[in-house]
Amino acid sequence: MKRFDKLKFPQNADAVLITSDINRRYFTGMKSSAGIVLAFPEKAYLLIDFRYIEKARNTVTACEVIELVKTDEQIKELMKKHGATTIAIESMEMSIHRLNMFKKSMPDFEFVTTDELSKEIYNLRTVKTDYEIEKIRKAQQIAEKAFEEILDFIREGVTEREISLMLDNTMYKNGAEAMSFETIALAGRNTSMPHGVPSDYVVKNGDFVLMDFGAVYDGYHSDMTRTVCVGQPSEEMEKVYNVVLEAQLEALSKVKSGITGKELDAVARDYISSKGYGEAFGHSLGHGVGMEVHEFPNASQRSEAVLEANNVITIEPGIYLPDKFGVRIEDFVVVTENSCQNLTNCPKKMIIL
Amino acid sequence: MKRFDKLKFPQNADAVLITSDINRRYFTGMKSSAGIVLAFPEKAYLLIDFRYIEKARNTVTACEVIELVKTDEQIKELMKKHGATTIAIESMEMSIHRLNMFKKSMPDFEFVTTDELSKEIYNLRTVKTDYEIEKIRKAQQIAEKAFEEILDFIREGVTEREISLMLDNTMYKNGAEAMSFETIALAGRNTSMPHGVPSDYVVKNGDFVLMDFGAVYDGYHSDMTRTVCVGQPSEEMEKVYNVVLEAQLEALSKVKSGITGKELDAVARDYISSKGYGEAFGHSLGHGVGMEVHEFPNASQRSEAVLEANNVITIEPGIYLPDKFGVRIEDFVVVTENSCQNLTNCPKKMIIL
Repeated sequence: MKRFDKLKFPQNADAVLITSDINRRYFTGMKSSAGIVLAFPEKAYLLIDFRYIEKARNTVTACEVIELVKTDEQIKELMKKHGATTIAIESMEMSIHRLNMFKKSMPDFEFVTTDELSKEIYNLRTVKTDYEIEKIRKAQQIAEKAFEEILDFIREGVTEREISLMLDNTMYKNGAEAMSFETIALAGRNTSMPHGVPSDYVVKNGDFVLMDFGAVYDGYHSDMTRTVCVGQPSEEMEKVYNVVLEAQLEALSKVKSGITGKELDAVARDYISSKGYGEAFGHSLGHGVGMEVHEFPNASQRSEAVLEANNVITIEPGIYLPDKFGVRIEDFVVVTENSCQNLTNCPKKMIIL
Repeated sequence: MKRFDKLKFPQNADAVLITSDINRRYFTGMKSSAGIVLAFPEKAYLLIDFRYIEKARNTVTACEVIELVKTDEQIKELMKKHGATTIAIESMEMSIHRLNMFKKSMPDFEFVTTDELSKEIYNLRTVKTDYEIEKIRKAQQIAEKAFEEILDFIREGVTEREISLMLDNTMYKNGAEAMSFETIALAGRNTSMPHGVPSDYVVKNGDFVLMDFGAVYDGYHSDMTRTVCVGQPSEEMEKVYNVVLEAQLEALSKVKSGITGKELDAVARDYISSKGYGEAFGHSLGHGVGMEVHEFPNASQRSEAVLEANNVITIEPGIYLPDKFGVRIEDFVVVTENSCQNLTNCPKKMIIL
């Protein structure tokens, strides 16, 4: 874990306080629901309570591990030891309440509450190491096995909820530590809701079944969506499916280091608009994936983010026709200098079950 | 949903902005990962984006549903319509960054950033309605079925991970919408880590197996822990188990409206200390449970909270002996005027498998 070496401290901060679960895990390598990282340019500490102390002492090497007993006192002591008086916090994660508490109990320190630290950590996290990409790849392998199995399961008569449960079970069985998010399995008209929740709706002949799901492996997420058809699709279904697929392929072909999130989003959006469905593509093209399922950089209409090699992002255009049906096709890729490497290996031509 | 009627506005706020997922769900009855509730004394609005708008229009009756397009503009418009200029935010949930953004884009409003609103909502949530208790009861029934089944599964040779997966699978199969938290299943020495994570450790004869788990049903959580023994326990294991059990029964017998969290914690802690294990009980006695698995009120050494009828709290003393073993026994109860109703129906006498 050389991650502290890469961390640029905000200009006027002697120390950096990392309190959010994910960022703490990013820097220490250990998962926990509480704890504080206090880093100085020369040394970093993990303060963690009774519940986690044994594990932390056995596994964390990136910082000195100290049992957390009295947060404020221990922070003050370490600040003193390192001659520090200004302390940057994660403005995008820390609550207003918590900052107020810190300010009250540590009136002698100055808190740097700009977005600098949060943004710096997000930026570090967007550029994945090979080690991280390997974990993401494993997470995706787990999801792909589940996709293969689910195709044998989907038929007239099963419910959305049964499909989502089966996907979850298969991913757990294959080694997922968690689901990337609550699995979405929708059928028939429900597919027109981009973030619908699986119900007891029973799949009928002629329905689209849309599945958006992912596995977590050792802290890293995967994310994919496929839309399959049970029985024969209508002409309109076929047409819409192919527009989404073309838009996705077009966007995938344009991914490379240097393109902005906005430009990439426009590739798919312009194509879908040119086919008359612009209004029906109501979300962004994609987002970063890593220790969280939604990270930076975004590929959205407003994203000025410039893609870099080793970003991992989803490409997921969709068309949603209320009261009719919806289609979304989502892969996720590693950005390279001149193109990208697709981490998703499942077929995308319409699958008819 | 009459919850808005109960909400006391902070004294100097004309409007209340609810942006956190759980509180938004509490007031609207609808789950979503984004959206804003803007409430005035006379009327409340849910602003929610494209992805959720269909569902919100079909299900939310507690407030007027508006499609969220431009957050700041829409808030300004509604504030104007209701003649409002001060707006309270959830200080305990909102990030420093988000408040800064709101302040910047809405310089004409005054933001009330005290803890009043957050605390008021937490307080509302601690006192459950019959409707909510019914859901919690169902969540617990799901967990108890899983516990029954797992007893047939636990034996020498299975791993912690297999036990936790089986618990998860059974809870999902029985109707859980999610796990209350990542299921804990630990065995042997690992039981000495109060928040250990299931590993590939293989259960041996003479091991304790500690399981802490819960199901979510329609947004409401359950939470229970049992420690069982595979084969014959040592004398020390038996002794420690019985100290924990006695401490738990003692605390359960003292639960009632009017007792403070601190007093209740002391009941179990004093008993455990009197048996010489005070140092080995390193966490709080319990916490509230509801739409989150950890809510108020707490039963901890520092909790001044006074229990009220219809609070739902856990009672979970434990003793952890590093490098040896640990025991925790956890039920959760509804507080009543003079005692409590235990929601947990599983046996607590040591189960030997």
